Amino acid sequence: MMRIVVDALGTDNRPEPDVAGAVLAAKEFHVDIILVGPIHRIQKELEKHDTTGMNIEILDAPQEIAMSTKAGDVTRGYEKSSMHVGMQLVKDGKADAFVTMGNTGAAMAIATLSTLRRIPGVKRPALTAIYPIYDHPIIVLDIGANADVKPEWLVQFAEMGSIYARSALSYDPPRVATLSIGEEEGKGNQMLAATQALLQKSEINYVGHIEPKEILTQNAEVIVFDGFVGNVFLKTFESTIRYFTNLLRQEVNKSWRAKLGGLLLRPALNSVRSRLDTNAIGGAPLLGVDGIVIIGHGSSNAEGVKSAINQARKAVLGGTVDMLRQHFASKSNTAGTE
Amino acid sequence: MMRIVVDALGTDNRPEPDVAGAVLAAKEFHVDIILVGPIHRIQKELEKHDTTGMNIEILDAPQEIAMSTKAGDVTRGYEKSSMHVGMQLVKDGKADAFVTMGNTGAAMAIATLSTLRRIPGVKRPALTAIYPIYDHPIIVLDIGANADVKPEWLVQFAEMGSIYARSALSYDPPRVATLSIGEEEGKGNQMLAATQALLQKSEINYVGHIEPKEILTQNAEVIVFDGFVGNVFLKTFESTIRYFTNLLRQEVNKSWRAKLGGLLLRPALNSVRSRLDTNAIGGAPLLGVDGIVIIGHGSSNAEGVKSAINQARKAVLGGTVDMLRQHFASKSNTAGTE
Repeated sequence: MMRIVVDALGTDNRPEPDVAGAVLAAKEFHVDIILVGPIHRIQKELEKHDTTGMNIEILDAPQEIAMSTKAGDVTRGYEKSSMHVGMQLVKDGKADAFVTMGNTGAAMAIATLSTLRRIPGVKRPALTAIYPIYDHPIIVLDIGANADVKPEWLVQFAEMGSIYARSALSYDPPRVATLSIGEEEGKGNQMLAATQALLQKSEINYVGHIEPKEILTQNAEVIVFDGFVGNVFLKTFESTIRYFTNLLRQEVNKSWRAKLGGLLLRPALNSVRSRLDTNAIGGAPLLGVDGIVIIGHGSSNAEGVKSAINQARKAVLGGTVDMLRQHFASKSNTAGTE
Repeated sequence: MMRIVVDALGTDNRPEPDVAGAVLAAKEFHVDIILVGPIHRIQKELEKHDTTGMNIEILDAPQEIAMSTKAGDVTRGYEKSSMHVGMQLVKDGKADAFVTMGNTGAAMAIATLSTLRRIPGVKRPALTAIYPIYDHPIIVLDIGANADVKPEWLVQFAEMGSIYARSALSYDPPRVATLSIGEEEGKGNQMLAATQALLQKSEINYVGHIEPKEILTQNAEVIVFDGFVGNVFLKTFESTIRYFTNLLRQEVNKSWRAKLGGLLLRPALNSVRSRLDTNAIGGAPLLGVDGIVIIGHGSSNAEGVKSAINQARKAVLGGTVDMLRQHFASKSNTAGTE
């Protein structure tokens, strides 16, 4: 039976959506759940649900990590936090995956430096996001862990993204692309030119550079960029949607005709919002650490937590970590020094 | 009297919107216009308009630059193109500004390498865009001319953007920011750290790093990034809006209720679109070349061309180029080598 550890202190509204999402997942996916966090808060929350027939354990981890806690501070002295205790279970082979909606930087630091650590051969773990572009999921990486990169790291991001997309998103083979800028103005930067040369020699299904508009038109399933550019892409995407809907709201409030139109259109707008919503996907993997770690948005509701657990489940079923280990083990025999 | 040269072969639908926009501008702003391009095509187009009382000249430039023409090809052998002839007029002091909706790379190359050339002291000219964020214009640069940069160049972009925002957009003083990524995941990259250190010592009104979401919430009027990141920001912004409206169209077509809502909402949606539309601003300056060059979208309509001419007019009235010349002349006395 698959065992997934869920951080009960993940979301902004912790532990309510975290626990509710875990119960939904246990029911729908028939997986064993270990809720990790302060035992009394979890028990109290869990009592609100009917968990008949489900296998949901609680593991005490009294220490709390806030959204504002700095990543640099958690690698020492946070051994009793839900993240540390939960990831250690995966490290010790007592669970198959760890899921959290909490502080991304803290999760990254605890995974990389204190518990799971890197898969041998991986230079730098990468943060990822998964988007359902016209309901067709794509994975983008790195989205913020590595602002300054080397071409060799970008190649590893491409390899990790490709393995994830194949094993957990069922693309065979996924199309892997590097994000660049239009020929109109320039031809990308030096880092990308060096990366492209390496990728063209690699075994992955590399389709070349694509532009931002092509990310949003299903031209590839794995998009690679450095963490700075990736974070700018991600945040620009999110804030443009917010900006557009704000402008629309302003205009709708200007006339009765538009208000009525807005009312009639509300279900369609909600449907668009849910298609854009990260809750549909729930979370995305931290790739390169030696175990499955899925990180979701702090704003997730129970449905989002459930979806994140489903991402973890798919990665376990797909054997993602074993494939990554094998890939980098075979590479490290031939690779030079950093 | 102010004299503005307008490229008649700029837009995708050349020369119709270019000529019509020039006529609109001549009428509304009382500026003299010189239309540059193949004389017979312009004459034929101009005959469609009533130009009584306007001062619109035609200057022959028979050579055509396509949108597909490579920037590297235009610096030799294109001396009879509308861009070359038009910019040379500005260079020779026979006109005050040049406006084109044509090939951005070609305009950049002809301005920088064949006609106007750089303002003494400027290391690299920058491409810019102007957005009306909630109807509050901001200028962002570089958006694609310089994919690989040095901190000193970014500082110059900040200075040029600041001078433009002050002289042509009437901010006193404009708030200047560098785009970076959230503290949550990282702290920007090494290039930005070095740039920030220099900007904090400068005379401009530097407000520090901001994130993409803050660009869209009026936290600064001048946003500085390298051309790679700037282009990703710009293209992600544009394609996210297209993606969102496509999703909305799909949902609207799914039910009669939503279709009716969409019909009632159409004026509000058009209003949002026009507030996002580049036609409202028309074009943005190529900064760092020794003269006013405004570049707009190839998809511009006559209204867009008129707005671009208005941007040129504001920069002439504001004395932008003189301010830039003075700034870099005073700097070059104290600056070291590159």
